[in-house]
Amino acid sequence: MHLKDLVYRTRSYRRFDESFHVDRHVLEQLVDLARMSASAANRQPLKYLLYNTSDRCEAIFPHLAWAGYLKDWDGPVPGERPSAYIIILGDKSVTESFSVDHGIAAQSIMLGATEAGLGGCMIASIKKEALSFDLKITGQFEILLVLALGKPSETVIVEPLQGNDVKYWRDDKGNHHVPKRTLDDLLLKE
Amino acid sequence: MHLKDLVYRTRSYRRFDESFHVDRHVLEQLVDLARMSASAANRQPLKYLLYNTSDRCEAIFPHLAWAGYLKDWDGPVPGERPSAYIIILGDKSVTESFSVDHGIAAQSIMLGATEAGLGGCMIASIKKEALSFDLKITGQFEILLVLALGKPSETVIVEPLQGNDVKYWRDDKGNHHVPKRTLDDLLLKE
Repeated sequence: MHLKDLVYRTRSYRRFDESFHVDRHVLEQLVDLARMSASAANRQPLKYLLYNTSDRCEAIFPHLAWAGYLKDWDGPVPGERPSAYIIILGDKSVTESFSVDHGIAAQSIMLGATEAGLGGCMIASIKKEALSFDLKITGQFEILLVLALGKPSETVIVEPLQGNDVKYWRDDKGNHHVPKRTLDDLLLKE
Repeated sequence: MHLKDLVYRTRSYRRFDESFHVDRHVLEQLVDLARMSASAANRQPLKYLLYNTSDRCEAIFPHLAWAGYLKDWDGPVPGERPSAYIIILGDKSVTESFSVDHGIAAQSIMLGATEAGLGGCMIASIKKEALSFDLKITGQFEILLVLALGKPSETVIVEPLQGNDVKYWRDDKGNHHVPKRTLDDLLLKE
């Protein structure tokens, strides 16, 4: 697949077929993509936790905030929830400054997920203290991002942004609409 | 090309065939990949400046720090310098918090550059004030990353990290060696 197709198909998905099992080997291969991506000063301070069992996914789910703009939706219901997670940690024994390493890594992972027939969502709105407690993550590590993964079961429609309203929304049929700025909007003239 | 090949081939390159001209259209298509990548709360606060002429590239070059670990190398000499740049700006009129949007965007761009037969380096060590002055970037925008691009003219060799020494180095033949942690090193046990 050309990268453009892969990037265009890599949307943020928040509803899944929860019965779909994600192999641990697939998750490891996604982390390998992150491993081989750029890291500030080559420090490589990121570590990863992988989860693909229902009990662990259930433990992680309540600590995540879903779709802030959908005020009357509390996140995916049972049956529609992610069936895997990759948690990106910063290892403070390597550095206290993680720069944008986790953004770089997350993008490699999410593109790889699309190629593997999966999809998901990068989540930064996390109850970090409670999640660290439940997963027994020690103080050496800072939770940077949670990547929710699974087999997507929703349709995401990208459309041109109207005015300045960046809020995504859901139509009567349950399709998720995402307003995007145009290329012209992003390119500054010299 | 499979994403794994693309990610593995996307190394940080710092020496180029400076005579190679990068079309503006190519740069625009790279920004389009960034445009369609994830953005925190879908705010899309990034803007882009594109440069592919020798006079502008010469103006940008002195404001960048190159390869901090190569103490006896001041960066690429004339003839080996990048022939294009994409500068990623944060638009403070949209938000003051850019999260890791620029990491996500930069990774999409660098993968696209590899697919287009180019290569380069994400640079965060920037004399921001001086660069803003020279390029007439107003206070509305914060310089987040400079992506140096061109036709790479060096060989980069990835090898397993020995001990904890993450410093890249250059051998007698001028090959650039990059120590990378193994996948096992990055995966934490539950």
